[in-house]
Amino acid sequence: MREVAVIGVGLTEFGELWDKSFRQLIAEAGSKAIFDSGIGAREIDALYVGSMSAGRFIGQEHVGALVADQAGFSHMHIPAIRVESACASGGLAFRQGYLSVASGINDIVVVGGIEKMTDVTGNAASDILATSMDQEWETFFGATYAGIYAMIANRHMHEYGTTREQLAQVAVKNHANGALNPYAQFKRPIELKSVLNAPMVASPLGMFDCSPLSDGAAAVVLCSMDKVKKYTDKPVKIIGSGQASDMLPLHGRDSLCTFEATVYAAKAAYKQAGIQPKDVDVAEVHDCFTIAEILAVEDLGFVKKGDGGKAIENKITTLDGQIPVNTSGGLKAKGHPVGATGVAQIAEIVFQLRNGADKRQVKDARIGLAHNIGGGGASCVVHILEAMKK
Amino acid sequence: MREVAVIGVGLTEFGELWDKSFRQLIAEAGSKAIFDSGIGAREIDALYVGSMSAGRFIGQEHVGALVADQAGFSHMHIPAIRVESACASGGLAFRQGYLSVASGINDIVVVGGIEKMTDVTGNAASDILATSMDQEWETFFGATYAGIYAMIANRHMHEYGTTREQLAQVAVKNHANGALNPYAQFKRPIELKSVLNAPMVASPLGMFDCSPLSDGAAAVVLCSMDKVKKYTDKPVKIIGSGQASDMLPLHGRDSLCTFEATVYAAKAAYKQAGIQPKDVDVAEVHDCFTIAEILAVEDLGFVKKGDGGKAIENKITTLDGQIPVNTSGGLKAKGHPVGATGVAQIAEIVFQLRNGADKRQVKDARIGLAHNIGGGGASCVVHILEAMKK
Repeated sequence: MREVAVIGVGLTEFGELWDKSFRQLIAEAGSKAIFDSGIGAREIDALYVGSMSAGRFIGQEHVGALVADQAGFSHMHIPAIRVESACASGGLAFRQGYLSVASGINDIVVVGGIEKMTDVTGNAASDILATSMDQEWETFFGATYAGIYAMIANRHMHEYGTTREQLAQVAVKNHANGALNPYAQFKRPIELKSVLNAPMVASPLGMFDCSPLSDGAAAVVLCSMDKVKKYTDKPVKIIGSGQASDMLPLHGRDSLCTFEATVYAAKAAYKQAGIQPKDVDVAEVHDCFTIAEILAVEDLGFVKKGDGGKAIENKITTLDGQIPVNTSGGLKAKGHPVGATGVAQIAEIVFQLRNGADKRQVKDARIGLAHNIGGGGASCVVHILEAMKK
Repeated sequence: MREVAVIGVGLTEFGELWDKSFRQLIAEAGSKAIFDSGIGAREIDALYVGSMSAGRFIGQEHVGALVADQAGFSHMHIPAIRVESACASGGLAFRQGYLSVASGINDIVVVGGIEKMTDVTGNAASDILATSMDQEWETFFGATYAGIYAMIANRHMHEYGTTREQLAQVAVKNHANGALNPYAQFKRPIELKSVLNAPMVASPLGMFDCSPLSDGAAAVVLCSMDKVKKYTDKPVKIIGSGQASDMLPLHGRDSLCTFEATVYAAKAAYKQAGIQPKDVDVAEVHDCFTIAEILAVEDLGFVKKGDGGKAIENKITTLDGQIPVNTSGGLKAKGHPVGATGVAQIAEIVFQLRNGADKRQVKDARIGLAHNIGGGGASCVVHILEAMKK
């Protein structure tokens, strides 16, 4: 396997972007990433795109061909591969693009992630998201994601004494970070009491425990390490990649308090990188609900199983904590255009490792981790990146 | 790149399978392929699944995790990757699985393709298929696939003198082949006059010029060549793989009479295989409409551009012709569960190269080609396979 680096990143602002189309969003993120990388468009060997449900959100399948066309690549006739793994579609696209360069099939690839979620009305967005749960065993019976994660939260509170306040603190922290991120959907801090007093969605999760519906796109350019010098002196190396699956519905799993897909994906990524969880300086984790961040910091090994609630309470994961988590604002405050999220996480890690994250910069960040979950934990992709030594 | 072989294939019957669910279909195809290969389930490193629009056809995204779970692999936590490229989703899944083994990332992978299209009512299936055209420039204005391919047919007739009878002869040939295929949706021959007198769908394409809506699944097991001896003495080697894209809507292309995605994908596959079109003994090509087969035999280089009509008239592509095309019955008679088609084409080529295609066996077939198109030609995947020498 060859070494591979991220040499360019691009993001649109996340939010309810009613004045921008799906095509405009992916073109904006893609062209920013290509410009940032310094490559010429003709040097691109292939395109990978993550999108969860463009077929339902905007009535468009065949997303790979659309993006190749919209990017102006259609005359180059390059392979365009769309992958889907629910909310981990972006992370999966990144992994497929990475593996294609690592294995020598491609030298330079562009990886994009996109979702346009706010052009539908009523309950449609929730219904569409619910297609990534188990349709026969969960969705059909009325389960929602808030409901599923509420069950997980209740069990975690029961098993480990995690409190409502600890859950709420995750939202407070991520909004504080999002306030420092120009790309974030919610660029304002919130107070603990606002989270605690917000309308209940599915007990114990209130409105501020849930990530929003969002439009947005993200893109990165990957390049074989032996060719990066031509383009940049700040390549960010991918040193670990892991992917794993689990039972789709919750009912068959051994525990509601751990996502084994995270555990297995992380194990593979740490092993490849040759590092321990304690070596990670900054992490973007999948906080679709506040409880999901608590599970993630445990399953990734940053703290012991059951200590996720205490970790947030003790400020271990804040911007100046021991292991800053979701410096971008996370899915909670940055927004969660599902197919874009995994790629946007990589972009934030790259900003941090290039020392370019401005007011949310983690001091001396050298190793970063991105953790992207599909659905209720049935899929997970974990990547570990490293800044170039000076 | 390592050498890779197909060591097992499995198919469900194609058709209107109202008594079988999505899960049952993929489990049936997958377990047949695994049984045929002789591997143990625990030897599988990863799973690749092609499905075009399970999200709209059955309300289920996150198809990779679903299939891993349904196959009983969830406890193994292996990576499960769903790819989508409209009607080329199956071929794309095969290519991704192939590349993952060729590059050394995996040793053994299972590739599945599936679509369940007949559980929706009214015009829903056509509407869902139309999501893989250009939503803004084609679908929104009422274009249908029959309409798009009818435009192509009209232009081909205008440019090259292709006739209505020649189009109809493609359907007659493929039904004759389908009658010999136990997996086919339509197991009966049809007469030329039936095709010519069938209700018009979009002039000049009548009902029998169009492939049907179908349910079905297909699966194959891929193995690194250096490990196949443990499992089989009839491995079928993948000697060429190519993928290309083109402008999504028809209006921007230089010509309606050629799919450049086919030309580029074929070029890459021929180059890798080190062969010429004349070396191919048997081919499965993407005949979603009769005109599509005529374009394909030209674009793949079996005959000169414009001679596709004459080729069918002169019986060059019949079972005992110079280059038998769609011995399975093709999409036209075997059926076209869109996500399954690309994988099912590979299965037919494997049957042929193993000398196991029974009454539709092509004598001394040694090299086979599979050609899978997405949408109106904006994506194409071509594979070339070779039988082991005795």
